[in-house]
Amino acid sequence: MKILVINPNDSNDMRLLIEQSCREVAGQSTDITVVCAGAGVASVEGYYDGAIAQVGVLEQIQLGEKEGFDAYLIACADDTGLYAAREIAKGPVVGIGEAAMHYASMLGYGFAILTAQAKSIAVLANNASAYGLSQHCRGIFAACMPVLALEDLTSDERERLVARAQAIIEQSNAEVLVLGCAGLTQQQTYFSQQLGVPVIDGVRAGISTLEGLVKNKLVTSKRNTYLR
Amino acid sequence: MKILVINPNDSNDMRLLIEQSCREVAGQSTDITVVCAGAGVASVEGYYDGAIAQVGVLEQIQLGEKEGFDAYLIACADDTGLYAAREIAKGPVVGIGEAAMHYASMLGYGFAILTAQAKSIAVLANNASAYGLSQHCRGIFAACMPVLALEDLTSDERERLVARAQAIIEQSNAEVLVLGCAGLTQQQTYFSQQLGVPVIDGVRAGISTLEGLVKNKLVTSKRNTYLR
Amino acid sequence: MKILVINPNDSNDMRLLIEQSCREVAGQSTDITVVCAGAGVASVEGYYDGAIAQVGVLEQIQLGEKEGFDAYLIACADDTGLYAAREIAKGPVVGIGEAAMHYASMLGYGFAILTAQAKSIAVLANNASAYGLSQHCRGIFAACMPVLALEDLTSDERERLVARAQAIIEQSNAEVLVLGCAGLTQQQTYFSQQLGVPVIDGVRAGISTLEGLVKNKLVTSKRNTYLR
Amino acid sequence: MKILVINPNDSNDMRLLIEQSCREVAGQSTDITVVCAGAGVASVEGYYDGAIAQVGVLEQIQLGEKEGFDAYLIACADDTGLYAAREIAKGPVVGIGEAAMHYASMLGYGFAILTAQAKSIAVLANNASAYGLSQHCRGIFAACMPVLALEDLTSDERERLVARAQAIIEQSNAEVLVLGCAGLTQQQTYFSQQLGVPVIDGVRAGISTLEGLVKNKLVTSKRNTYLR
Amino acid sequence: MKILVINPNDSNDMRLLIEQSCREVAGQSTDITVVCAGAGVASVEGYYDGAIAQVGVLEQIQLGEKEGFDAYLIACADDTGLYAAREIAKGPVVGIGEAAMHYASMLGYGFAILTAQAKSIAVLANNASAYGLSQHCRGIFAACMPVLALEDLTSDERERLVARAQAIIEQSNAEVLVLGCAGLTQQQTYFSQQLGVPVIDGVRAGISTLEGLVKNKLVTSKRNTYLR
Amino acid sequence: MKILVINPNDSNDMRLLIEQSCREVAGQSTDITVVCAGAGVASVEGYYDGAIAQVGVLEQIQLGEKEGFDAYLIACADDTGLYAAREIAKGPVVGIGEAAMHYASMLGYGFAILTAQAKSIAVLANNASAYGLSQHCRGIFAACMPVLALEDLTSDERERLVARAQAIIEQSNAEVLVLGCAGLTQQQTYFSQQLGVPVIDGVRAGISTLEGLVKNKLVTSKRNTYLR
Repeated sequence: MKILVINPNDSNDMRLLIEQSCREVAGQSTDITVVCAGAGVASVEGYYDGAIAQVGVLEQIQLGEKEGFDAYLIACADDTGLYAAREIAKGPVVGIGEAAMHYASMLGYGFAILTAQAKSIAVLANNASAYGLSQHCRGIFAACMPVLALEDLTSDERERLVARAQAIIEQSNAEVLVLGCAGLTQQQTYFSQQLGVPVIDGVRAGISTLEGLVKNKLVTSKRNTYLR
Repeated sequence: MKILVINPNDSNDMRLLIEQSCREVAGQSTDITVVCAGAGVASVEGYYDGAIAQVGVLEQIQLGEKEGFDAYLIACADDTGLYAAREIAKGPVVGIGEAAMHYASMLGYGFAILTAQAKSIAVLANNASAYGLSQHCRGIFAACMPVLALEDLTSDERERLVARAQAIIEQSNAEVLVLGCAGLTQQQTYFSQQLGVPVIDGVRAGISTLEGLVKNKLVTSKRNTYLR
Repeated sequence: MKILVINPNDSNDMRLLIEQSCREVAGQSTDITVVCAGAGVASVEGYYDGAIAQVGVLEQIQLGEKEGFDAYLIACADDTGLYAAREIAKGPVVGIGEAAMHYASMLGYGFAILTAQAKSIAVLANNASAYGLSQHCRGIFAACMPVLALEDLTSDERERLVARAQAIIEQSNAEVLVLGCAGLTQQQTYFSQQLGVPVIDGVRAGISTLEGLVKNKLVTSKRNTYLR
Repeated sequence: MKILVINPNDSNDMRLLIEQSCREVAGQSTDITVVCAGAGVASVEGYYDGAIAQVGVLEQIQLGEKEGFDAYLIACADDTGLYAAREIAKGPVVGIGEAAMHYASMLGYGFAILTAQAKSIAVLANNASAYGLSQHCRGIFAACMPVLALEDLTSDERERLVARAQAIIEQSNAEVLVLGCAGLTQQQTYFSQQLGVPVIDGVRAGISTLEGLVKNKLVTSKRNTYLR
Repeated sequence: MKILVINPNDSNDMRLLIEQSCREVAGQSTDITVVCAGAGVASVEGYYDGAIAQVGVLEQIQLGEKEGFDAYLIACADDTGLYAAREIAKGPVVGIGEAAMHYASMLGYGFAILTAQAKSIAVLANNASAYGLSQHCRGIFAACMPVLALEDLTSDERERLVARAQAIIEQSNAEVLVLGCAGLTQQQTYFSQQLGVPVIDGVRAGISTLEGLVKNKLVTSKRNTYLR
Repeated sequence: MKILVINPNDSNDMRLLIEQSCREVAGQSTDITVVCAGAGVASVEGYYDGAIAQVGVLEQIQLGEKEGFDAYLIACADDTGLYAAREIAKGPVVGIGEAAMHYASMLGYGFAILTAQAKSIAVLANNASAYGLSQHCRGIFAACMPVLALEDLTSDERERLVARAQAIIEQSNAEVLVLGCAGLTQQQTYFSQQLGVPVIDGVRAGISTLEGLVKNKLVTSKRNTYLR
């Protein structure tokens, strides 16, 4: 099974973090390639960045189709270009925001999302609503840090983020925390230990979801909406 | 990884079919045990059957906890006893209806569910609503056959069911079909070939979903609702 | 008219309180019998307790059918086993949570629910949503006291509960308070006097709702979902 | 207990039918007065009629307050002036559409409404949505007969209406039928016998609901919205 | 193009303020007449006032039809008598609450409404829900001042209102503010300057919306609901 | 007032049709420029086309900002790139699908949308849901003709389309028709005459909506989501 993971953020450091998470969770027979979208958006923060970055995401998927990938993961919490990607891929496509929210809804009564910037709240909220999962979403909160800063937290920054997450959980009565930024992908274990609730990293959730769909021999429906 | 699969229907024939599907989809390192709930309900058709069968489901999970299972699959499309099960299990618990609907929402714009009996429509519809997925559900349709009859279809019966599924898809404009009965678990491939749309078997979807959750080191939140 | 009231909590003290409320509100020609479910759950707190207790509720209804009861009240705020009960009863079945919420929606713009334990919040919220009444529900709050402690409040405890209820009303801008625990059934008058808003006790609301349904000659539909 | 029933339709024939239904269902100690609104609207068909008729409804309630009525029933299926009425009445106020829909939601999985004129469909649908009950409403269908014609059906007309109701139930898979016009109040028994599903007459449902609220010592909340 | 603006509040001072706003925003070829409803309600605060005032609104529209007006604006934030008005007018009818909320939904992610009295919150919330716009509405807040006091604010009162609006925006994370009272119609510019977010005055929004509908040659549909 | 209209479809013929509609509806002092997006998508049919075309839309808006445009209309019924556009424009941005649906919700109880291709149904449905207007949308139906074919209908094709629209209205009980494709912009008058219900052309609706917003001195909120 060959999975192509596309990082809409053109940051090689983030790409490496994503790759590490993918390797930690993927099965032995899963062959994972992680690329940046290459659209020139260093970090996707809000709708405009997403609109530009998604062209790169789609190009990578077109290349991926030629190389015979079985499935695609869009590794940005706002699921950049998800629906368009489904039109051009034969295999399944999921976004890390989508995968994380679906997992979260099966583990507790209500989840909260911690994202990088306040600008992304609307994007994530609209996605949650489109997926049907907003009824499980108790709130989306911003760390108010740049996406790229989340990749390489100092110890102090990390503790502040954990404290922020703790406050979010208490304020919203969420029972699960979703890490709403690929930059936090390597923080799942630490956050989970500190917070005492399930903490979901969409990168890992996305890889596992795709592995499941492929093992189920499921592909994107080409009956109408996603027919190219 | 040890997964306990519980068939709320006390039918050994169905248990064997479920076991076969589990084996077909599970990873090599996944150790799967399939048991019947043992509550004396031959086939779960509607709310009363579900209420009785769930006591057996919960007993199996309590036994499973003693034996150290990592995760649990409830193998009836109405997800018998799902929330209660989450209270007594440390690891994740999913139902085959739930798993199938989540997968379906990622593969096409709208899914339809084919269930055995009209009595189950309300159960599945209320579940879809509770999961947040009713906005993706274009309709739930009954084969109007007893659950146990679906285990062992004659060739004629199977063709009639395929024709029924085809009509459902056209009538509802669904792009994905969910098999809403564990008795149909071995029909996924054939239905998929005949219908030309993704067909989801909750048993397979459930095993893959649980494998993913366990690989993600995710467990049921014990912060409040599912704390015992 | 013969009404069977079933207390899913196996507490005789609570049964007596419930009986007292029933007598206070019932019409002269209404013959009320109050029994405990007998499933061995001393107090229903959360989904697992409810799953076990409902088997006792259903057994009592089956006995009740043999004895010719006209209607059934499930006297726990989480409406234990409500849908399953409708399948085996000819006459109407209502739960005290359901009855209270329906009444509340007709008396003010938005209600709040005061329940015993935080674990029950999800159960009540999911019920409110299934009944369609979550749009009127401004919040569900826990007294954070065991269910059985609510039966026999000291004067201090009662004042603290009233103060908690007052705070809930102000915080949520609710205009009506629902007592979300049968253990509070005898507190309606006192709470109402102290709080200055309508306070609804589901036990009384349930008896009156059933009396109404029976006088209307209405029974549970056996067209499909509740056909046994 | 004194209940004032207000018929927004200025038809004395309909008033007499309503009075008959009230008497058939009310308790012995309930003293019922039925009046017409007196606003000059012979039959309420749509929003404009309702806007005019509600002034009469409100005047009757003001008179009723002076005469010490305990509760008020608005006897038109579109619940003419319901919220405004709650502002000027101390006791509870319900509408027959509201009462019928609440009852219907407790008796089966989904109800259909049979109303007189297509113009009323929007009114009833908006009300169902405001009450939270649209998720239980499978459809609202018009008899396409004037409201006043429903008061005095010929045998042929009645059979055609029953056939229409039967078709509505089958088409919508409703399990309960709501008579969405006070003109049909005397048809409940006959329709119920012919259709084999619970048939709800809002007049009866409304009287019983009010009796229940009064026995529960519940009044309209004056905390904010309904404070005059 | 002739537009009739009807002020449901029988206040000539408010009528003059409304007229001023209309003139400021209307096109050169738009002929605007502003009248009071004349139903004797000095200021509409809540459902009862609205019910009485709407009869006056409807009478003015009937007069307007005789005089050949092309469109109608109902100049009270609770859109007094809106649906009924559509039944008797050939041209389009909009309410200032409705117009403002539609505009708000196109200018930012979520709006808040500042109204005069807490009693109006339910009215506005129910309207937002009926229009479909409650998902964009982050909260409705009361100035807790009488409607008529808003017409003629002292400098201190105005500053307090601005501070209240600022707090509302921060608390609710709204990105747009709707002035939920015609009495505030002349405050749009000042509030907008002070608050730094778009501030919408429904009077202006309503005039522009009607001008647009008329230029589009659009009238109220007479297919069913609004057919007289 | 200077409005830039951007046609995401790179068809000069369609651009000219759009320009004609704009001129027919715009005020005298409105200066309208119509351009194609220039992203190389001849006609936008579905999510992938939209993703590619939106980059061109955004480039045109960036150029427009330099040239001092006051407002922007995205002239494709799927509102290509709408949210991203709001981030880079100071003035208001609306889409023709959005503008048409808002107008429709003010003119009748429920609208239907006639679009070109079945693939666009999901796009329009998701948009309606995001705007909050799906509760007013009775159905979205495809003409099953290529977008560009709609520009230049033969008389026969036009009659077939009118017949299709008539059937849609009857089947869905819609009271208003939305033309869900810019290619139909010049058909509003004819369709309206033939169908007897209000027919909304988003191009005209969009121009009028923008003129209104500008006259109201309203701009896109830069408080958070649309801050660049």
